[in-house]
Amino acid sequence: MRIALLGGTGDIGRGLALRWGHDTDHELLVGSRDPEKARESADTYRTRLEERGVDADLKGFENAMAADRADVVVLAVPAYHLVDTVESVADRLDAGTILVTPAVGMQRDEDGFHYNRPGAGSVAALAAAETPEDVPLVGAFHNLPAGALADLDADFEWDTLVFGEDGDAKATVSQLAEEIEGLRALDVGGLANAPEVEAVTPLLINVAMCNDDLHDLGVKFQ
Amino acid sequence: MRIALLGGTGDIGRGLALRWGHDTDHELLVGSRDPEKARESADTYRTRLEERGVDADLKGFENAMAADRADVVVLAVPAYHLVDTVESVADRLDAGTILVTPAVGMQRDEDGFHYNRPGAGSVAALAAAETPEDVPLVGAFHNLPAGALADLDADFEWDTLVFGEDGDAKATVSQLAEEIEGLRALDVGGLANAPEVEAVTPLLINVAMCNDDLHDLGVKFQ
Repeated sequence: MRIALLGGTGDIGRGLALRWGHDTDHELLVGSRDPEKARESADTYRTRLEERGVDADLKGFENAMAADRADVVVLAVPAYHLVDTVESVADRLDAGTILVTPAVGMQRDEDGFHYNRPGAGSVAALAAAETPEDVPLVGAFHNLPAGALADLDADFEWDTLVFGEDGDAKATVSQLAEEIEGLRALDVGGLANAPEVEAVTPLLINVAMCNDDLHDLGVKFQ
Repeated sequence: MRIALLGGTGDIGRGLALRWGHDTDHELLVGSRDPEKARESADTYRTRLEERGVDADLKGFENAMAADRADVVVLAVPAYHLVDTVESVADRLDAGTILVTPAVGMQRDEDGFHYNRPGAGSVAALAAAETPEDVPLVGAFHNLPAGALADLDADFEWDTLVFGEDGDAKATVSQLAEEIEGLRALDVGGLANAPEVEAVTPLLINVAMCNDDLHDLGVKFQ
């Protein structure tokens, strides 16, 4: 599969690129608004994987170029860039290309981090409103600590929650998730169930902030 | 310690009564609006524990009577009864009695369960507004599947998230939580961090609804 990581130079994009590069043979397209930055990041990730003896298929492109060529497009951008990123690539998405949002809106106050729920219902719903009708949108990879994800020496056992209206698209994304060692994908229904998924991320940060011995937290349902 | 479980005839109250009865020597006061129902439930729990060779200190009382006598009062009532339950016992709480809310407000639609966030910010904030000033309010025991909690044959490894403004009260409640075998208490800061904790409960139900092989789900942060 050809997977584009828009905003692939950022935290969660780096983590997914390195893990997919390490654990799978998929073709990975690191996207950025700046193609030079995208190429630099791709080179860095490829070098890091080569040092571990892994020859990954990993290249950098401007976001729209990356999206144009991909079967699955992950919107690994901050929530406040989600809508304009979808808009900027919408006409480059073939019918059936799967769009994936891991984005979470948060705000911080003196007590901790809080889920900043948009009026549309969820961050995913904001993306859905800009997504072409023939492109299924799937939510996944929200609640993963980016630092540990990008640290290939870190082992983990985490769940990622997958939601969306298109069952086949969810199955594809779930399989891609489970190809990452230590990650289990759990279906959590449709787009209407997004807010409770997105709200877990600030919770994970709050738990880590309040407990000195805990950091880089993911979540496991059992 | 003397622990009152208001609404102790309900699902989560039964689970906590049985687990504390089984794993600790605390004096347990099962509360209900109907004292006869409270005594019946207490008898049932005591019998179930006796069958396992455990002689638990477990009695039934009307809610206000139970609250009057307790060091820790758990509001094991549905969210829509939380405020009137606090009001009904407020003048029976001694200074320093710890009030504990595990209550979560949910609504259901065709997609699943959703966190019904009150205008006050959280369900816990609704309780806090009615709690006497010298009574610390602590949130805990939100994200526990009541069925498995009440099934003494079920083993588990779950976390419970503990929040509140009073550090000593949180420490007491965390210790009580960890006296239940398999339960780890994690501090998650102050009352402002309640919504993300309360929102995990509908998420757990949605995950269980969408995955045939998963039920009675708790959560573990790792």
